[in-house]
Amino acid sequence: MIHGKALKVLSTLGISGGEEFTVSVLMNVKSKTMISFKDVVKIDLRVLKKVELDRISLVSPGATINIIKNFEIERKFKVEIPDSIIGIVKCSNQNCISNNKEPVSGMFRVESKNFKILRRVYCDQKYYQPEFYHLI
Amino acid sequence: MIHGKALKVLSTLGISGGEEFTVSVLMNVKSKTMISFKDVVKIDLRVLKKVELDRISLVSPGATINIIKNFEIERKFKVEIPDSIIGIVKCSNQNCISNNKEPVSGMFRVESKNFKILRRVYCDQKYYQPEFYHLI
Repeated sequence: MIHGKALKVLSTLGISGGEEFTVSVLMNVKSKTMISFKDVVKIDLRVLKKVELDRISLVSPGATINIIKNFEIERKFKVEIPDSIIGIVKCSNQNCISNNKEPVSGMFRVESKNFKILRRVYCDQKYYQPEFYHLI
Repeated sequence: MIHGKALKVLSTLGISGGEEFTVSVLMNVKSKTMISFKDVVKIDLRVLKKVELDRISLVSPGATINIIKNFEIERKFKVEIPDSIIGIVKCSNQNCISNNKEPVSGMFRVESKNFKILRRVYCDQKYYQPEFYHLI
């Protein structure tokens, strides 16, 4: 993932540092191309759920996931922002129906994957990519 | 340092993950003795100041510091809680003079290093070790 995202990804996954599995984090290390710097997070004995991959896609779009089994990479892919997001993101509009006691879960439509815009389904509030982390 | 402290130490040092130096963090790795688990934080190109070592001593008492130069350990020591602490810790007592606009910096006397008790110099408030992190 691009540099600056590792601690945000840990927080998004609910990892606070006291867990009973091993977590390794590298921040600001040179990428293979040696042009840019990246962050790496390695979590032992943890299979990420779909909802967790979606969270990562919002916090660190395009981050690469490596699934390692028996010391070998079994699968490698980039996280992708899904078409719609339900229950992960909270609307910051205090008057939005999803922030009241109504039984409505936070649902967002992804308006543009390239420009990374989310639009709130109920109140039509628009969010741009740098704001996503604060909504989770 | 004992397991569970790495992210707290980063936060105490003001490292939020976007810095331009390399930071490596290992959480819940077996110690040399293989009896217990520990955390390791490695910060490149950063010399820790006395006040930062004091902060670490409050968050992770007894943590070992290795100063590495030219790929070799130049010095190794354990952080120690100092006799008095000035300006690092805030008193949680809202009525304490140090929390008002008076020009009084937060000063604590370390009452017992073994039992890790801090006593506030002005208002006499007592703090026990597990509370220290929240005061910084």
